[in-house]
Amino acid sequence: MRLSRLFGKTHREDPAEAELASHRLMLRAGMIHQVGAGIYGYLPLAWRSLRKIEQIIREEMDAAGGQELRMSVLQPRELWDATGRTEAFGDDLFTLRDRRDRVLVVAPTHEEELATMVRANASSYRDLPKLLYQIHTKFRDEPRPRGGLLRVREFDMKDAYSFDADEGGLDLSYERMAEAYHAIYRRAGMDAIQVEADSGAIGGKDSHEFIMLADSGEDTVVVCEGCGYAANIERAAFTKVPNPPEDPLELEEVPTPGVRTIADLARHLSVPESRTIKAVFYAREGEEGGTDVVVVAIRGDLDVNDVKLARAVGGGGLRLASPAEVEAAGLVAGSASPIGLGGLSVIADDSLRLGANLVAGANREGHHLLNANFPRDFGADVVADIALARAGYGCPVCPDRELAERRGIEVGHIFKLGTGYGEALGAVFSAEDGGQRPVTMGCYGIGLGRMLAAVIEQHHDERGIIFPVSVAPYHVHLAALNSHRPEVAEAAEALESELCARGVEVLFDDRRESAGVKLNDADLIGLPVRALVSPRSVAAGAVEIRARSGDEASSVPAAEAADAIEAMLSDLGR
Amino acid sequence: MRLSRLFGKTHREDPAEAELASHRLMLRAGMIHQVGAGIYGYLPLAWRSLRKIEQIIREEMDAAGGQELRMSVLQPRELWDATGRTEAFGDDLFTLRDRRDRVLVVAPTHEEELATMVRANASSYRDLPKLLYQIHTKFRDEPRPRGGLLRVREFDMKDAYSFDADEGGLDLSYERMAEAYHAIYRRAGMDAIQVEADSGAIGGKDSHEFIMLADSGEDTVVVCEGCGYAANIERAAFTKVPNPPEDPLELEEVPTPGVRTIADLARHLSVPESRTIKAVFYAREGEEGGTDVVVVAIRGDLDVNDVKLARAVGGGGLRLASPAEVEAAGLVAGSASPIGLGGLSVIADDSLRLGANLVAGANREGHHLLNANFPRDFGADVVADIALARAGYGCPVCPDRELAERRGIEVGHIFKLGTGYGEALGAVFSAEDGGQRPVTMGCYGIGLGRMLAAVIEQHHDERGIIFPVSVAPYHVHLAALNSHRPEVAEAAEALESELCARGVEVLFDDRRESAGVKLNDADLIGLPVRALVSPRSVAAGAVEIRARSGDEASSVPAAEAADAIEAMLSDLGR
Repeated sequence: MRLSRLFGKTHREDPAEAELASHRLMLRAGMIHQVGAGIYGYLPLAWRSLRKIEQIIREEMDAAGGQELRMSVLQPRELWDATGRTEAFGDDLFTLRDRRDRVLVVAPTHEEELATMVRANASSYRDLPKLLYQIHTKFRDEPRPRGGLLRVREFDMKDAYSFDADEGGLDLSYERMAEAYHAIYRRAGMDAIQVEADSGAIGGKDSHEFIMLADSGEDTVVVCEGCGYAANIERAAFTKVPNPPEDPLELEEVPTPGVRTIADLARHLSVPESRTIKAVFYAREGEEGGTDVVVVAIRGDLDVNDVKLARAVGGGGLRLASPAEVEAAGLVAGSASPIGLGGLSVIADDSLRLGANLVAGANREGHHLLNANFPRDFGADVVADIALARAGYGCPVCPDRELAERRGIEVGHIFKLGTGYGEALGAVFSAEDGGQRPVTMGCYGIGLGRMLAAVIEQHHDERGIIFPVSVAPYHVHLAALNSHRPEVAEAAEALESELCARGVEVLFDDRRESAGVKLNDADLIGLPVRALVSPRSVAAGAVEIRARSGDEASSVPAAEAADAIEAMLSDLGR
Repeated sequence: MRLSRLFGKTHREDPAEAELASHRLMLRAGMIHQVGAGIYGYLPLAWRSLRKIEQIIREEMDAAGGQELRMSVLQPRELWDATGRTEAFGDDLFTLRDRRDRVLVVAPTHEEELATMVRANASSYRDLPKLLYQIHTKFRDEPRPRGGLLRVREFDMKDAYSFDADEGGLDLSYERMAEAYHAIYRRAGMDAIQVEADSGAIGGKDSHEFIMLADSGEDTVVVCEGCGYAANIERAAFTKVPNPPEDPLELEEVPTPGVRTIADLARHLSVPESRTIKAVFYAREGEEGGTDVVVVAIRGDLDVNDVKLARAVGGGGLRLASPAEVEAAGLVAGSASPIGLGGLSVIADDSLRLGANLVAGANREGHHLLNANFPRDFGADVVADIALARAGYGCPVCPDRELAERRGIEVGHIFKLGTGYGEALGAVFSAEDGGQRPVTMGCYGIGLGRMLAAVIEQHHDERGIIFPVSVAPYHVHLAALNSHRPEVAEAAEALESELCARGVEVLFDDRRESAGVKLNDADLIGLPVRALVSPRSVAAGAVEIRARSGDEASSVPAAEAADAIEAMLSDLGR
């Protein structure tokens, strides 16, 4: 491809709206075009990279026994109502009304549709297992699109779904997919780690994310250097240190004038925060239209993890209560606790079980209670781990080691779904014993655009992108300086022809631009190898070649240039 | 691929809902799954064919100098308002409201978005011409989805757009695209003809459709065997035979009791229908909210072509008037004409100019006027060709030859758009003379699913599909009869391995099914070559091979079977 013909202009200045390197560099390199909030078009350079990513994914899915198919974007809303996901997705779900006033979902994911296809095409245990996938565009009305391709509302995704006869089969399919994912990231030149994750609106019992570590990432993961435990902070467990054992004492009310916070309380009573109970007030829509306040109780040294909390209560719908709602519920902010409350739901973190005689609010302004004991003094509708992990806390697997926090970009997510979709949609099969059972599903997603952005986040410098060979739009950036001079044009065109004949993909800068512009653009676009032909190199019978990832340019005889370039590409992993 | 593993079940019975062969056979072969009205999922067999069609299209687009990119499905409505197409598409346009209550179009086509990308990336005549394309899913809320993949609401399409500096450039780009289209159909094994077409909501001056002739098609084209003139009937011209020349005579009212139709009138007055004027009443929404009646006048032997009429008045919005609307406008059905009407719009077919002294309604019950002459006796707001062509009419190019009518399936559509989009969206460039000019656009579309359906319409028999090699999901259907017998399984697996090693794509029927089921499925799925391994063939050291398109099976020595299959595939065009 000649750069003079390529659709897409490079830009010298950093775009004001772009914070992340990948966003900034893709805009500057003329790779993406913003159409609306979280909606992009891809120009040919980006599209070539995305097609290479697509092909890597396809090959790994096929190698894992996957069969490619294609599902529809538009789906009847009834399909989503059948699994309760119209509600679970809420405002994230794009829907439209057709000319007959029927509501269609613009699909963000395809469990429902594929389960109905499986219902029609896999009726016996002999038809299982199946691993089915597609690579197609998905839609999700993200509340806060950001970061260029990292959080968008329309995105291309590989979504695979496994269908097994039982949990054992699912475990094997899941493991095979996890291996395929590692192979995909490795081939695309990405370092990604697998971490435990929350499964959100997709549901199911287990899920893992693949996280590419990067300071610019919006996900936080906690990792243990000791045992390798790794989890998204939304999901991460940790070892909660018990208080020293004591016999439970009698409740005793003490005045605590002016105390508003746990820190105040610990200071006022000279106890560690771990000897207190923190009450946090949430609200949710009541069944009869009003608002119900929910009291969440957790040990004072810990914080509530909203994602764990939502999971503990079986879904979303909880939000922090407003001061007015707290007051209307008869609660005394600063001195509240679950003790003696009537009629309000209580959710307790399991840390409250790890010790006796804590300090809790007395539900009376300026007073607290000593020697609060759970569950002696108050009950809870749900007791679960709803605490937020932090760096420095003990690893849940090897408690002596401290967890560390890292930032990263989610580049893949896999889920063990179980039998829920099969049950809701009647995707059942005749088992070997003659019984009818719902299929056991898993699902496995990778976003292509996000993967491209993540590659660039991990492979760039201050001058531009440094593409890994496997996902570079072209292999070689051939820059001809003073290309209007016939001997330069001739030498460059000869090298272009020879490389193309060998199957090397060449982007040939034949424009009438200065050497500075051409070299800057080569660094910006960041193809793996740059070959330079100039009046000086032609006079020396040479071509200057350089790996974008290396420091040193080297001059090679023109007759050996194609060989040298192929060798360099091979070193770079082609 | 083993048939025992393939996702998709064949069906013995014809599905009740399918009228067309392609729809019926794709359902029976387990290739497609209906999700909703005009919405389908593609199972792996269909998807493999579609990917091959996609690749043929991509190669021809690239060979024609196209650059592939990807535009968004969701687009701000404002972009469509800027070109007036929100209205032009009307109810065909799917739109949705996002969580911030902004309206997004779910795009049926991409002229607007790409013109804005070109505005940002091609500012000089040096950046032109450009030919840009994508292969992606489009959405259109068809009022009457039908025929399986032939008329759907969600469909994959290759849409290409050319950007030139002037009309001369557009003509070249258009010609190059037409050639690429012919190459695509040829490679896919389709006979398609290029016909003149109406450009509908896409707009522009010239357009051509590619029509695959088939009785099941919903398009009618007229063709001239003499000169090769071919046009969609929506657009087709023809030679209107003038009446014999006469001097205009004076208007004369005559009683015509009981006359309601042109046939009545011609009989009553003993004149040919070509000596009468037919008035047809249309209605459209008036500017102040009411309904305006429009009188359309045409020679009595001709009929109005609604598509030409819409084009003549600059867009849609016309529909036949109801009897009540006709009466409210003061018109006398059966005796109406444009003569002496005040205040109503009149559209006249240019046939009214071809002769004198016609018979027209007197706008008085039971009376007509002799010697009506246009434009002496009445004016018209628009005079144009709005007449419907028919078989037997004279060719517009060589009037002595008669036009014939054929049915067919539209499998491609190309348009000369001109500068309209560039003007509306500010896609201007600096011309060589220093001036600023809007880009001159063309657009070029092929629907992939429709192409697959058309291939099957043209290539099937009563037993099933007969895939051309180039778009077959696999090349060879290897059926092993009594495959539980070790010698059969061994021979079949050996042949499968050898073919796969040669790059031949094999669908291996290893199921425990009867010979009848296996042979019927082979015919139904219709791969180009069937290879049969059975206890008898194994005993004879042979394999039976047969082209799906041929009659005769032949037995070849097992050691030569792969060679023979490759030779047969080569004869079939591989």
